[in-house]
Amino acid sequence: MPALPSRVRIVEVGPRDGLQNEAEPVPTGTKIAFVRALVEAGLREVEVTSFVAPLAVPQLADAGQVAAGVAPIGGARFSALVPNRIGLRRAIEAGVERIAVFTAASETFARRNINMTIDESLGVFADVVAGATEHGMSVRGYISTAFVCPYEGPVPKERVRDVAERLLAIGVDEIAVGDTIGAAVPGGITDVVECLRERFPIERLALHLHDTYGTALVNVYAGLQAGVAVFDASAGGLGGCPYAPGAAGNLATEDLVYLLDGLGIETGVDLEKVFAASKLIAAALGRTLPGRQYRRLAARGGA
Amino acid sequence: MPALPSRVRIVEVGPRDGLQNEAEPVPTGTKIAFVRALVEAGLREVEVTSFVAPLAVPQLADAGQVAAGVAPIGGARFSALVPNRIGLRRAIEAGVERIAVFTAASETFARRNINMTIDESLGVFADVVAGATEHGMSVRGYISTAFVCPYEGPVPKERVRDVAERLLAIGVDEIAVGDTIGAAVPGGITDVVECLRERFPIERLALHLHDTYGTALVNVYAGLQAGVAVFDASAGGLGGCPYAPGAAGNLATEDLVYLLDGLGIETGVDLEKVFAASKLIAAALGRTLPGRQYRRLAARGGA
Repeated sequence: MPALPSRVRIVEVGPRDGLQNEAEPVPTGTKIAFVRALVEAGLREVEVTSFVAPLAVPQLADAGQVAAGVAPIGGARFSALVPNRIGLRRAIEAGVERIAVFTAASETFARRNINMTIDESLGVFADVVAGATEHGMSVRGYISTAFVCPYEGPVPKERVRDVAERLLAIGVDEIAVGDTIGAAVPGGITDVVECLRERFPIERLALHLHDTYGTALVNVYAGLQAGVAVFDASAGGLGGCPYAPGAAGNLATEDLVYLLDGLGIETGVDLEKVFAASKLIAAALGRTLPGRQYRRLAARGGA
Repeated sequence: MPALPSRVRIVEVGPRDGLQNEAEPVPTGTKIAFVRALVEAGLREVEVTSFVAPLAVPQLADAGQVAAGVAPIGGARFSALVPNRIGLRRAIEAGVERIAVFTAASETFARRNINMTIDESLGVFADVVAGATEHGMSVRGYISTAFVCPYEGPVPKERVRDVAERLLAIGVDEIAVGDTIGAAVPGGITDVVECLRERFPIERLALHLHDTYGTALVNVYAGLQAGVAVFDASAGGLGGCPYAPGAAGNLATEDLVYLLDGLGIETGVDLEKVFAASKLIAAALGRTLPGRQYRRLAARGGA
């Protein structure tokens, strides 16, 4: 049995990936309070918003205010999604220090999700990353549908590797490969991770998992066994993807922390305090969240 | 990475472990129809009821009718829980071919769940197993709280091993070790399985997992890696344990099948047909079920 990493970095994506599909507007102050609660729980990297077109995603129209509002919290690295030069300009104005760009490993998904071919998106991002770097920002790159595409089915791992190499070539410092519809199984995780680590250091690789099929934690475990030590998660399991049929629920941060705690892997994150952050946002949304720990703790009488 | 088993036996426990905590009586005919649907889905071993005292568990007062009613279905091995000589007599009268006895690895849990010490329970079961064997029945043995006890916390693996050896010594042919409150993590699964397989063949070992903390599938994967090839599951994730605080939801059969299918491990079970069986019982109960696949498939419009 391979040794597991002794420490894992968790990238909290709830404020962005979690909230982006919520139809009812969440007040900017609530979003900032949510981020503050996450940082208080020990989360040291939080993706706080996305500078997509306000008309396309009204929920994130306040991206500038959120990014500016969380900056004084300190104690964590905040990032924001940036789709293009316009978004980058807004991110720079808001004082964002780290951005993320996002493409896919499946052409059909790329066209439907970002309305570009993968090639086109990499051209746009080369320009965005150059601009970001000039302003002293660091950049993360997402690759959606890195395992299974809702339109094309299983995605060849070599396609994921190619896109990852091209993202690294344009200046991205971390690659987050996404199981966008949550359909991956451990064999697929192992295959993709082993394929990628032939070409670049495993330290640059993050797994972004969804729990639609209930396999997020088993996929984390397969990732850990393959050497991955960075995982994205969303408080309470908030979120999904509007362009991916059936994609409901990111890997819940509490569930991830429970597993890692149990495996003796250090995260610096306090499960109960993440739950407190989840309760805050669940109350604002007026509904329960799908995470297993969230539901267990809520049933205990805590929410 | 160790090779995984090429084939897994699934023991479906929904009709017993799933239904035993339901307050509203489920009609006997519905229970039998549920079992029939499970067998049609390819499940070849189904625990159909429990011959506990009818006053203690009114839901299972019809154990004799259920056991007699499923016998003509054929195509599967049906079993029933038997707590004592009185239960055994009823099981014999109903024509049951396989029974299961149940004790625990934690004294506190044993006393609260079956009102006996572990020693006392093994004495009672020695007698029950002898009687069952005389009547040509085979016997499975459950060990509850084999990882974590809700009252005592982590359970030493040597205690599990000792109870397992004593069950085998009285004539049980399979040991199902249970994560009764669903709190186990992969490290604990690996430790217990490796401890047990030092003393008896891994073929005699089954894992009975709950998904309370969301770790059932990752624990299955750890079990597979340690060589386990028999897993209990409950259609739709129906069930829990009334004496274990916070224990809600068995590992869902659909979730298990999805993982095993994805790993290329043969089960003979059809996920969609298990879902059909889950829909049948969910409709009878008038509510949704907690399994991940169940919820995903139900959201698709199937239920």
